[in-house]
Amino acid sequence: MSDFSKLEEKLNLSFKNKNLLKQAFVHRSFLNENPAPGLDHNERLEFLGDAVLELIVTEYLYNNYDNPEGELTSWRAALVNSKMLSSVAKELSFNDYILLSKGESQDVGRARQYILANAVEALIGAIYIDLGTDEADKFIKNHILSHLPAVLEKKLYRDPKSYLQELVQEKFGITPTYEVLEETGPDHAKTFIVGVYIEKELLAKGKGSNKQEAQEEAARNAIDTSPKIGV
Amino acid sequence: MSDFSKLEEKLNLSFKNKNLLKQAFVHRSFLNENPAPGLDHNERLEFLGDAVLELIVTEYLYNNYDNPEGELTSWRAALVNSKMLSSVAKELSFNDYILLSKGESQDVGRARQYILANAVEALIGAIYIDLGTDEADKFIKNHILSHLPAVLEKKLYRDPKSYLQELVQEKFGITPTYEVLEETGPDHAKTFIVGVYIEKELLAKGKGSNKQEAQEEAARNAIDTSPKIGV
Repeated sequence: MSDFSKLEEKLNLSFKNKNLLKQAFVHRSFLNENPAPGLDHNERLEFLGDAVLELIVTEYLYNNYDNPEGELTSWRAALVNSKMLSSVAKELSFNDYILLSKGESQDVGRARQYILANAVEALIGAIYIDLGTDEADKFIKNHILSHLPAVLEKKLYRDPKSYLQELVQEKFGITPTYEVLEETGPDHAKTFIVGVYIEKELLAKGKGSNKQEAQEEAARNAIDTSPKIGV
Repeated sequence: MSDFSKLEEKLNLSFKNKNLLKQAFVHRSFLNENPAPGLDHNERLEFLGDAVLELIVTEYLYNNYDNPEGELTSWRAALVNSKMLSSVAKELSFNDYILLSKGESQDVGRARQYILANAVEALIGAIYIDLGTDEADKFIKNHILSHLPAVLEKKLYRDPKSYLQELVQEKFGITPTYEVLEETGPDHAKTFIVGVYIEKELLAKGKGSNKQEAQEEAARNAIDTSPKIGV
């Protein structure tokens, strides 16, 4: 069993109810294999934490930016989507703490991404209940709103494929193309690796469980890392 | 111009910044015809108020009910959807306060429903900023969460057509039928009146801008008002 006191140390939090912290990391699949009296899965905490996260991010954007509601909505979406939250979870080593069934723990693809993102929301719910609004606010500012400058700079709130197309069009007067480089795995669990190109030059690769997802990641990687694009 | 001090009296609120209260009622169409320096439309307040409403309702449900997250989510949806919020707006006579363009004020159908619902969210945003969380909490408890018993009793969180079908099936062993009774208005702004029947007996009527909407309202009215159904 994971040592949650290390996690508390890492997060610089001290829970009054340690069980609540643990609950935030319990996926429903875990309880099927490990029924434990008094231990519930994290879905109700996630229900609460999602709303706490939404309000704290919304209020921050409202107070700090005069932009129209439509823009703030898309910035917020980029901050609270499962991609961003799962990357926050990975930064905080949540993979070491999440409690899953043996079967579920094999799957490290898209399903895990959702599980990690949900654990972040559940943890926010647990902080809010156990330690109050101010601590939830601090956690969200430190670990989620801290990504806002990158979201704005790299325009992560925009669909990456259309944004890359605009950038490439502007710089080179042509349209980037996508090509499937690899397709592996059984039908119900395929993985695609896609490359994005300017003419014949590979800008970046992306991986996903379908072509569209792999293309989006490739576009995002090109925007983030290709020296030819350089945002 | 509407007298917003009457509205404050009615809502038992006293705004420090009266302009913020007014802003909650300004639809973007109004500013096109009545540009006023310092007066903005209500969309940013709505962006904020929507998140405040979501958290306060979520926290209330979380604290008062042990039900699984999926159920709480559907109850919440029934409390914060535009149908419920526009009916709250009508109870509070928001039609007397909402500031619209002349064109927009002609339309009293579905578009108005959204405008009224958005004004409720914008007002919640304005209360939250100007008067704080406790007053927002009080407003939401008095005017929105007050509908929770009816939502639960009448199972308003369920699709009304399938719920009515279940009730009629159970009581009479048959399926209710729907019939269009009236279809009026030009193509771009049709109104349908639909009746819902058990065999040849009319249970209730419903009105809507398309058949589906009119059927749903008819089903809802049957559940709410028909002595044959009596939930």
